[in-house]
Amino acid sequence: MSMDQICLPIQHDLASVEDVLRRETTSSVEIITQVIQYMIANKGKRMRPALTILAARMAGYHGEAAATMGAMMEMVHTASLMHDDVIDNAAVRRGRPSANAQWGNQISVLVGDFFWCKACEIMVRHANPRILKAVTNTITATTEGEVLEVVKSNDINITEEEYLKVIQLKTAVLLSTCCQVGAILGDVSESYETAMKRYGFDLGIAFQLADDYLDYEAEEERLGKTTGTDLREGKVTLPLIVALKRADDTQRQSIKDAALAKAITPRQFKDVLAVIKDHNGLTYTADLARHYIAKAKSHLEPFKPSIEKDALLALADYVIERGE
Amino acid sequence: MSMDQICLPIQHDLASVEDVLRRETTSSVEIITQVIQYMIANKGKRMRPALTILAARMAGYHGEAAATMGAMMEMVHTASLMHDDVIDNAAVRRGRPSANAQWGNQISVLVGDFFWCKACEIMVRHANPRILKAVTNTITATTEGEVLEVVKSNDINITEEEYLKVIQLKTAVLLSTCCQVGAILGDVSESYETAMKRYGFDLGIAFQLADDYLDYEAEEERLGKTTGTDLREGKVTLPLIVALKRADDTQRQSIKDAALAKAITPRQFKDVLAVIKDHNGLTYTADLARHYIAKAKSHLEPFKPSIEKDALLALADYVIERGE
Repeated sequence: MSMDQICLPIQHDLASVEDVLRRETTSSVEIITQVIQYMIANKGKRMRPALTILAARMAGYHGEAAATMGAMMEMVHTASLMHDDVIDNAAVRRGRPSANAQWGNQISVLVGDFFWCKACEIMVRHANPRILKAVTNTITATTEGEVLEVVKSNDINITEEEYLKVIQLKTAVLLSTCCQVGAILGDVSESYETAMKRYGFDLGIAFQLADDYLDYEAEEERLGKTTGTDLREGKVTLPLIVALKRADDTQRQSIKDAALAKAITPRQFKDVLAVIKDHNGLTYTADLARHYIAKAKSHLEPFKPSIEKDALLALADYVIERGE
Repeated sequence: MSMDQICLPIQHDLASVEDVLRRETTSSVEIITQVIQYMIANKGKRMRPALTILAARMAGYHGEAAATMGAMMEMVHTASLMHDDVIDNAAVRRGRPSANAQWGNQISVLVGDFFWCKACEIMVRHANPRILKAVTNTITATTEGEVLEVVKSNDINITEEEYLKVIQLKTAVLLSTCCQVGAILGDVSESYETAMKRYGFDLGIAFQLADDYLDYEAEEERLGKTTGTDLREGKVTLPLIVALKRADDTQRQSIKDAALAKAITPRQFKDVLAVIKDHNGLTYTADLARHYIAKAKSHLEPFKPSIEKDALLALADYVIERGE
């Protein structure tokens, strides 16, 4: 199923998310509004609002705050994307020039800050201390994950455990919190809240694992970014970690050379990909993603059947199938 | 009076601020803790905690939250300093290598984010919605001011009004909010809260004006940064704006050349300074700073005599005298 099909039951709420995003992100400083319009027009999948709204609805909450909180989570995510792009010095984001390529690092850092402030303003206005606490702690974790990633980038000795720690912090915690915010809106009992958090967390791990193997697999057009970007940025992700562990000395050396090179040649990329495939780095990563998706789905077991539950189950499949 | 003398009555609270800063800023990611320790060891004047605490005490609040909120405001300030340094590509901060010079832009952006998250966590824990609202709105304004400054940097046609708008947003609003947070802790009536906000706001304008003329005047050692940094970074501040307005065509051209130059020579700097002095750019700026200090003090008029009021009055004088 496509993301659009999955989100059919919450189409109306997702339209409200767009309204909130437009309404809440204006500034008296013209260029801020301009950059923000550019960022939110560059839609992406709106995975975080969808999760927040589906979780809220499954938790029995049917008010308007689901869309508002969904938009807020998207703003938090966009803030971190903008800072990420500065950190990675990314030229492209979702197939279009990134904000920092367009306006420079200065504007990206500051508009990222602005997004996060606006998200915070929305939470303060909504005045739910549990949501404020959950989201604030989450951003701390996300930031820690990104720092860890920076520190570990270029480290070809990174272990699978360290890699999993990074993706838990930088990706899974935020998706988990989207589900938790939905649960808080529904005011469900603790065991249900925990189940929903866990669903989001395992979904998030699988999501990042899929991102990392798709980065090697997909065509440029399809994911809107150049294939092999991670390798070019010196990011050592699971497909490469697996290959490095199983490679012989010659193969190891060729990966090392590629990972250290200032500009990687198509030839080098092909060689590295051959080593990865030789040692089943991609299938290993895909298998692990499937494992986490199965785990994620199992956390939804205690919930009674509903269209939202079905959507969340379908979303889990989508996360690992989107590139295939 | 020195800052230490002014702060004698709140010495104990300022020691608590240091405790809070140490306690609240650890991370499981080692390098984050390391960078933060470096940043908070590089003390600066602790102007924001001092303002917060003095305002709280003058407002009749004597609990421990004054120090906690003071530390929180310092964390907000430090977050923005770290992002500022990335934006200015600053090599030096308070006489020591800046975080981005030491660890790179990536770490500075992320540890800045981390500081801001921790400040937010403290506010959430303290659970005072009025403080949360005031501080969140303030960071939005600060960010807008910084964007405006980036947009207006290198613009030698910037007017005095536009310049004042920038420094209000990027500096004055935060100092104003320190005082407001103190007032909120004291739960004073609205007219007192407004008076305290206004004191901080005018103090903040004077503070930035003083920074800007001292940048031209002071020796490298004294302010811990190289004299003429603003000009070198292409920042057009009030001393230069005044000179540009009054300069003849030849002088205007020499300033333009200096402001556009990739690397400004000592000779060029001397020439620009001569034009500025010729047109009383520094004395004009200093006079304006004194005007705002007088205004700031006048807002304290309605408050009964107290050692905290005396300290705030002395702090106002300190702000414009520190470099002289």
